[in-house]
Amino acid sequence: MSSTAITDSPAPWLRDNCPCAACRDPRTGQKLFQITDLPADLTLGAVREVPAADGGSATHWEVRWEPEGHRSLYPAAWLAAHAPATSYAAGGDGRTEAEKELWAAADLAGQLPEAGWDAYIGDREVRARALEAVGSLGFFLLRDVPCRDRMVLGVAETFGFVRRTNYGELFEVRVEADPNNLAFTGALITPHTDNPYRDPVPTVQLLHCLRNEAVGGDSGLVDGFHAAALLRSEDRRAFETLTRVPVEFAFSDARTELRAERPLIEVDPLGRIRGIRFNNRSLAALRASAPVVEEFYAAYRAFGELLLRPELRLDFRLTPGDCLVFDNTRLLHARTAFSESGGRHLQGAYADLDGLASTLAVLRRAGRGEGAQA
Amino acid sequence: MSSTAITDSPAPWLRDNCPCAACRDPRTGQKLFQITDLPADLTLGAVREVPAADGGSATHWEVRWEPEGHRSLYPAAWLAAHAPATSYAAGGDGRTEAEKELWAAADLAGQLPEAGWDAYIGDREVRARALEAVGSLGFFLLRDVPCRDRMVLGVAETFGFVRRTNYGELFEVRVEADPNNLAFTGALITPHTDNPYRDPVPTVQLLHCLRNEAVGGDSGLVDGFHAAALLRSEDRRAFETLTRVPVEFAFSDARTELRAERPLIEVDPLGRIRGIRFNNRSLAALRASAPVVEEFYAAYRAFGELLLRPELRLDFRLTPGDCLVFDNTRLLHARTAFSESGGRHLQGAYADLDGLASTLAVLRRAGRGEGAQA
Repeated sequence: MSSTAITDSPAPWLRDNCPCAACRDPRTGQKLFQITDLPADLTLGAVREVPAADGGSATHWEVRWEPEGHRSLYPAAWLAAHAPATSYAAGGDGRTEAEKELWAAADLAGQLPEAGWDAYIGDREVRARALEAVGSLGFFLLRDVPCRDRMVLGVAETFGFVRRTNYGELFEVRVEADPNNLAFTGALITPHTDNPYRDPVPTVQLLHCLRNEAVGGDSGLVDGFHAAALLRSEDRRAFETLTRVPVEFAFSDARTELRAERPLIEVDPLGRIRGIRFNNRSLAALRASAPVVEEFYAAYRAFGELLLRPELRLDFRLTPGDCLVFDNTRLLHARTAFSESGGRHLQGAYADLDGLASTLAVLRRAGRGEGAQA
Repeated sequence: MSSTAITDSPAPWLRDNCPCAACRDPRTGQKLFQITDLPADLTLGAVREVPAADGGSATHWEVRWEPEGHRSLYPAAWLAAHAPATSYAAGGDGRTEAEKELWAAADLAGQLPEAGWDAYIGDREVRARALEAVGSLGFFLLRDVPCRDRMVLGVAETFGFVRRTNYGELFEVRVEADPNNLAFTGALITPHTDNPYRDPVPTVQLLHCLRNEAVGGDSGLVDGFHAAALLRSEDRRAFETLTRVPVEFAFSDARTELRAERPLIEVDPLGRIRGIRFNNRSLAALRASAPVVEEFYAAYRAFGELLLRPELRLDFRLTPGDCLVFDNTRLLHARTAFSESGGRHLQGAYADLDGLASTLAVLRRAGRGEGAQA
């Protein structure tokens, strides 16, 4: 590698990434200076290659910075992987459509991402693959999870932290005498994301089936990122409207009054889909001028129709011991109606994707260093 | 009021907001139909005013919908407040700059939003005003909170739910022998937001001072929304760059590996500032092409310089019993260096703004219905 990776890199970027012990705390790896601590007129001084002491390939490049006189030593391998002047990795934190595997129902026929509880607990590789499926497909299904009260919290703790809400640490999905949410009745529930009236919205949902003897009460999942990408290709204007119009969602009961105002489709600054909020039950009256309202409703209807296409919806039935874990910023979930006389009982809980991704990264790190078994 | 509020409203909007018991579940207030359940060719049929039975002002408007034949009855007062054709309330969920009171240090001189613990617990109105301050100013300061271990969790539970993270349910801010974060050393910490490497980021932070005998270790707060608004007026290009370039933040230790890629300044679809991430310690190497990197670094420096302006920074000293509660999506916090020989101990915890806003809304509701005292 030549010195062009250095000389063509923007100076503040290169200086900001100096790995020396004066610039990064050796105990924490955290940066010790502010961007404002660097001279505004920073330039590269002398640049030289420093061969590996053992004559191997681990060469470094040394840079002397003017006018400050600081010396930085960059591993050539790091430069090759990161320097903007050469190539740069696409990167990303795994949360946008660019890093997902979008699916329709037929793509998953006969190959649901699933694992048995004992294998999941006992085998790092099984666990890692399950967590990867939440990133790539948006969900995984654990089988044979012990049908114990509050076990759903134990499942959440295998990969992250439970997000407590006004529904409690966990919530009971069964017919309630005095429900504060249609989920707690026997009603049919069309595809939706949970808690759009919360901000931050819970990014992971768990549903653990303890009992399902009801007629009906089958489950469905729709890949909202796939649906939004379809909308973009079929009706670009509708897609853009749904990314642009903030919509209020609201929930209230005797002890709670939540509302959040966000677009139905969230895109990142590069325009990539990174979040879906869709819930007819809690959409509040849209506050906007008449032309915006007209445009929103046309787009909302178009997206709603698309989300109901049978080929997008994966149907299955949760049986006792099943625990579904899914990305609530991407997948919509649904259920068919069932008799209110009972016989169906799930326990649900919320958690977050960042903790899940961290657990996966550490598993993969340990897998590399220590072999694939727990 | 004439019928124009009805005839000039987009039909799908009006129909979607039908308040009848067949359209909204009387038990939960949730909507019972999908937008796709409505006819695509929906039009207004007969419209008539329905006077109040008691001859009072609570009139309604009745609409018959074609071709479905459904009848909706709208309170005239609701139409006056919501109809797009007349006027509409600006609305919002309180989270963007439009609903904040931006401040510089001098604006708060001698009038910090503060309350004593006993008054906060005993008096609804004091509690409501404190929570309102988090919405409007971004923080409040509780005085005389009992200096007990884990008391910070009790404070969080007065308005919301603790967000557990890899740092635990609470974290100890004091000098640690083997710190995984510079916060746990005696180092100076410049203005920053916490946990930008997490997504969703914790939106509320609490810091409860148990002990502060150290020389140094004073606290500072900067209103990041104000700073971003200043950047927009002084250097629009830099502002736009920081809203447009996703930046990776990363944190790792033996058990954790977190990263999130988000812009430093988050705006909503209408361009209003609604979130700040700024933390030099955990900013990862930017992955972008050289021109984007150049532009980002110029903007990052401009914002960094602005955030260090002394007139923006509110300085104060936490004394034992103080508990600072602040919006971590808006305020940057800082501290001066202190001696590592100890004498300073805070306990911190995270929570979320949505729960806080819900608690406030219910307090105000109860205040209206039941008087201002607990």
